[in-house]
Amino acid sequence: MSIPSFVVGIAGGTGAGKTTVSRAVADTIGEAVTRIPLDNYYEDLSHLKYDERAEINYDHPSAFEWELLRDHLNALSMGQAIEMPQYDFEIHNRKDDTVRVEPTDVIVVEGILALYDDAILDMLDLRVYVMTDADVRILRRIDRDVIERGRDLEGVINQYLETVKPMHERFVDPTKKEADVIIPEGVNRMAVDLLTDKIEAELENDHPDDRELGSYEPLEDD
Amino acid sequence: MSIPSFVVGIAGGTGAGKTTVSRAVADTIGEAVTRIPLDNYYEDLSHLKYDERAEINYDHPSAFEWELLRDHLNALSMGQAIEMPQYDFEIHNRKDDTVRVEPTDVIVVEGILALYDDAILDMLDLRVYVMTDADVRILRRIDRDVIERGRDLEGVINQYLETVKPMHERFVDPTKKEADVIIPEGVNRMAVDLLTDKIEAELENDHPDDRELGSYEPLEDD
Repeated sequence: MSIPSFVVGIAGGTGAGKTTVSRAVADTIGEAVTRIPLDNYYEDLSHLKYDERAEINYDHPSAFEWELLRDHLNALSMGQAIEMPQYDFEIHNRKDDTVRVEPTDVIVVEGILALYDDAILDMLDLRVYVMTDADVRILRRIDRDVIERGRDLEGVINQYLETVKPMHERFVDPTKKEADVIIPEGVNRMAVDLLTDKIEAELENDHPDDRELGSYEPLEDD
Repeated sequence: MSIPSFVVGIAGGTGAGKTTVSRAVADTIGEAVTRIPLDNYYEDLSHLKYDERAEINYDHPSAFEWELLRDHLNALSMGQAIEMPQYDFEIHNRKDDTVRVEPTDVIVVEGILALYDDAILDMLDLRVYVMTDADVRILRRIDRDVIERGRDLEGVINQYLETVKPMHERFVDPTKKEADVIIPEGVNRMAVDLLTDKIEAELENDHPDDRELGSYEPLEDD
């Protein structure tokens, strides 16, 4: 089992295209990449009732269990496997089951606040912010929540105006200043190439002789 | 003499750090890079008097001789040398002398409107926008024009408010949507690494066997 040599953070607002960028990077690099969605590190809220959980501001940094994410990134970087929590958006809570994640050459941490926590920032070798216009982002969110997930349009709009937008402007948008590079308007092939060429160059440097990308053991899906 | 295989455009507002990024890329890649400053393609204004030239809006796209820049990029990309004009900021006009530029593996076009012209955009393999806060940019411009060049502070402020800022907002800032990647707050090492790793990977692809970076013939300085 290899020890991670490169940790990438991919941040950006809701609907910015973080996951698309992250998947494109993972697909290009191959099996040596583990994706860590920040959503999985929402605080365990089992002590609250459903109605109480539905009232939580999930766009505020306090909604995340940063300590656990730090511990997990530390463990992976020392070559230890972790039990990654899973999140269930339907019930606004962590699932009972975890997913075992083995350390891999490349780790991608993705989420609205992936560039927020100072300790996490220190662990990132490459910091990426996906910057997409707010109108495009809310339309993607409506598409996902209303059209795909069948949620109430009015509720989605209210949540966006009451918490998503103000939290974005207060906590998410300022983190683009922490980025090494900003990808405009979601995924584009050249931007993904830039990221993957850099990652591959770093992997080459760490394993100058004996490595062939894609020859690693298969990982857990996330 | 080699034929250029990769053309990079680096745009951004006054004082954003375009030249610093461009120089850092050129220094890292080595002698195979030619830098083409867009300033050199300001229209020849020899038919105007000094006072008339001083009144020109040099932040408007119409101040540039786009046709000549297109012809020169085309020539370089076909392996032909060009006679690049030189610009004299003191007299607001082109110098009499040109500089002979030989085609090289990598061309970097840098300037406020490097991502503006559609025909130029089509020639660019990599489009970069350097995005820096307006307050930092004007302070850098004051530093350059007032402290280094001894210009009148009030004149610099008036020019900034009357033409530089409105033209930036109207013509320069919108071109960040054309960028493959945006570099925040001027130069950072990781961003330069991303660009140079990509360029080197492209050069490797074009010359899989026989190339060694830095082994090319020396270029003209620009």
